[in-house]
Amino acid sequence: MALIVQKFGGTSVGTIERIANVANKVIKEVKNGNQVIVVVSAMAGETDRLINLAKQVDELPFEREMDVLVSTGEQVSIALLAMTLIKMGYKAKSFLGFQIPIYTDGVFTKARITEIEPDNIQKALNEGNIVVVAGFQGIDREGNITTLGRGGSDTTAVAIAAALNADRCDIYTDVDGVYTTDPNVCPKAKKIKKISYEEMLEYASLGAKVLHLRSVEFAQKYNIKLQVRSSFKDEEGTIVCKEEEIMEQPVVTGIAYDKNQAKISIIKVPDKPGIAAKIFGKIADENISVDMIVQNISEDGKSTDLTFTVTKNDFKKAMDLVKEIAKDIGAEDVVGDENISKVSIIGVGMRSHSGVAAKMFEALAKENINIQMISTSEIKVSCIIDEKYTELAVRVLHDAFELDK
Amino acid sequence: MALIVQKFGGTSVGTIERIANVANKVIKEVKNGNQVIVVVSAMAGETDRLINLAKQVDELPFEREMDVLVSTGEQVSIALLAMTLIKMGYKAKSFLGFQIPIYTDGVFTKARITEIEPDNIQKALNEGNIVVVAGFQGIDREGNITTLGRGGSDTTAVAIAAALNADRCDIYTDVDGVYTTDPNVCPKAKKIKKISYEEMLEYASLGAKVLHLRSVEFAQKYNIKLQVRSSFKDEEGTIVCKEEEIMEQPVVTGIAYDKNQAKISIIKVPDKPGIAAKIFGKIADENISVDMIVQNISEDGKSTDLTFTVTKNDFKKAMDLVKEIAKDIGAEDVVGDENISKVSIIGVGMRSHSGVAAKMFEALAKENINIQMISTSEIKVSCIIDEKYTELAVRVLHDAFELDK
Repeated sequence: MALIVQKFGGTSVGTIERIANVANKVIKEVKNGNQVIVVVSAMAGETDRLINLAKQVDELPFEREMDVLVSTGEQVSIALLAMTLIKMGYKAKSFLGFQIPIYTDGVFTKARITEIEPDNIQKALNEGNIVVVAGFQGIDREGNITTLGRGGSDTTAVAIAAALNADRCDIYTDVDGVYTTDPNVCPKAKKIKKISYEEMLEYASLGAKVLHLRSVEFAQKYNIKLQVRSSFKDEEGTIVCKEEEIMEQPVVTGIAYDKNQAKISIIKVPDKPGIAAKIFGKIADENISVDMIVQNISEDGKSTDLTFTVTKNDFKKAMDLVKEIAKDIGAEDVVGDENISKVSIIGVGMRSHSGVAAKMFEALAKENINIQMISTSEIKVSCIIDEKYTELAVRVLHDAFELDK
Repeated sequence: MALIVQKFGGTSVGTIERIANVANKVIKEVKNGNQVIVVVSAMAGETDRLINLAKQVDELPFEREMDVLVSTGEQVSIALLAMTLIKMGYKAKSFLGFQIPIYTDGVFTKARITEIEPDNIQKALNEGNIVVVAGFQGIDREGNITTLGRGGSDTTAVAIAAALNADRCDIYTDVDGVYTTDPNVCPKAKKIKKISYEEMLEYASLGAKVLHLRSVEFAQKYNIKLQVRSSFKDEEGTIVCKEEEIMEQPVVTGIAYDKNQAKISIIKVPDKPGIAAKIFGKIADENISVDMIVQNISEDGKSTDLTFTVTKNDFKKAMDLVKEIAKDIGAEDVVGDENISKVSIIGVGMRSHSGVAAKMFEALAKENINIQMISTSEIKVSCIIDEKYTELAVRVLHDAFELDK
């Protein structure tokens, strides 16, 4: 008898009929002789409905109360799923964050799980129940409701799998796995059978929205084998596991892209110590996250150009702020560009292969796609390019690294 | 500085605008130098929406999960009200049943409050917060969510007032007080200034839906002064208090009526010990509540006629059941009538005045309204009459007892 954690997203529980479909997937595992813990998100659209209610009160609603509000979405889902399982003739019991409890730090709207007590769930399993857990929510040590941020139910599932020492954690979603790249952009994209935690982390942080970033971190930390699979089709998905468990590792595993990027250059920044700290300190104070930063070598020894990227939503706010800062530090000008995107190649195989970045640059150059900025890590290379070339770049790179093979 | 509990029903918090109106009423008390605890219901229509979702899963949904589901309604309300108060510049903190905690027995969907721990609320008040409490919900000793049944938020408010030793408990609703009778039926109906707990209990049990029955029992037990008043008008409502605090007590305080009544007669029931117990035992087993029961004196010493009333919704089920029972015990026939209603006069003054019932019968007789059944208690007289005379009877009795004076 294995213990399996299943997680179903909002689309999968979006209607009463779909909840019945989820129940059938759960029951299938029970009939195979397994114990099952199901983690569910709010019904599709429900979280947005609640956020919209709050925004009618206050554009920036008080965060403690925001968490009280939005956590009701998952509460509705667990009740409906448990009822459905019981109606179908199975024992089921729902659990909210406080009933487990799932403890988090006290950072409302983006809390981190600090501890999960396994006893109450274990008891319910021992009594023959299918355990239905509300994703996305926990409580802090004072008993306040906290939520984990968008996509947090993935993290709930992985953390529960770790706390209960589950044999597997299946993340059911509306796509049927992780692809070499977005199939909408590149029809040759192929489903990846196995991908390492490290690569999946890069995927998640580079804008591919398959899994919540922190859920992958958790899975890596506690070595939980994840499977990303479809709620609607009955086929194998993509396994996320340790690098060592993947026999044939290609040099490049996949291509990610992110159009939600904008670029800001500060021209002729005085080349003095502490200037970068001053600029990026002020930007951070306004809660704007900066992704890539490039600083050229100072030509005249007195001034340098500084370029960085932010998300498109932060662009206007960042431009206004940077113009002020530029005046303050005596820079010459500030130039912005919203029409850029980031294209990245990812693969742990890069570590042992040289020339991977060169191959990328060459493939882009062949199509006359100009590279505006470059950023690299051990297992990825990202290039900022003109936004209109995004799809072309993805297809060219997919071919260059033979990902359809 | 007084401590005031305010309770607002679903209509009062039905939209974001109305929640702002509630916030203003709360702030008014704060500006008067008082501490305030606000208890709120789910937004109008929300509980029905949730029940409808559950019914799509199962006509009789599993009750533990039903409580998990419907308790989200109040959770949404407290979050939105607390946000609104904060947006308006006041400190506010919401509390769910488990966060206080409000302990109940373990009877899902109709739990009773057994204990309220005052410490967490007291602490929040001491820290200068307006405390916003979810009505209708609590937890049992195992941490399961339990709800108190329709109208249960009234009871939450009164129980909180008792636990925190509040100076006043104001129940804001969509009517502006308790009336001598339904103003839609009798335009001469007058708002009652003060009414005793006993009378209010009769009102609640006789079909006037102003206050939840158990909330009045609680108020009486802990001697909490209640005020029923309008959410939408700024005027005094009706005080519900001890009989001794009402100076001028009229003989009859008000007239109630209930059209949701049906009558079943079993003809020629063998006059033997244990027969009534058998009949009503079986009816109770089916969860049908019986209101009035009348049994005539046995004429021939062998058989008697037995008549009782049920609600109209239970009528068909009860008739089918009683026909079976009648066959079983050898009764002659079963006759049903759905076209009846109950009209009642209520008043603690009856205790010290004779001739009140006679005056009622006389007033009805004058209009040729036939009385089919009579039931009395110390402080009320109820008559079953033909349904079509209900409104006439109410007006006639209102005049006879000079309730417009």
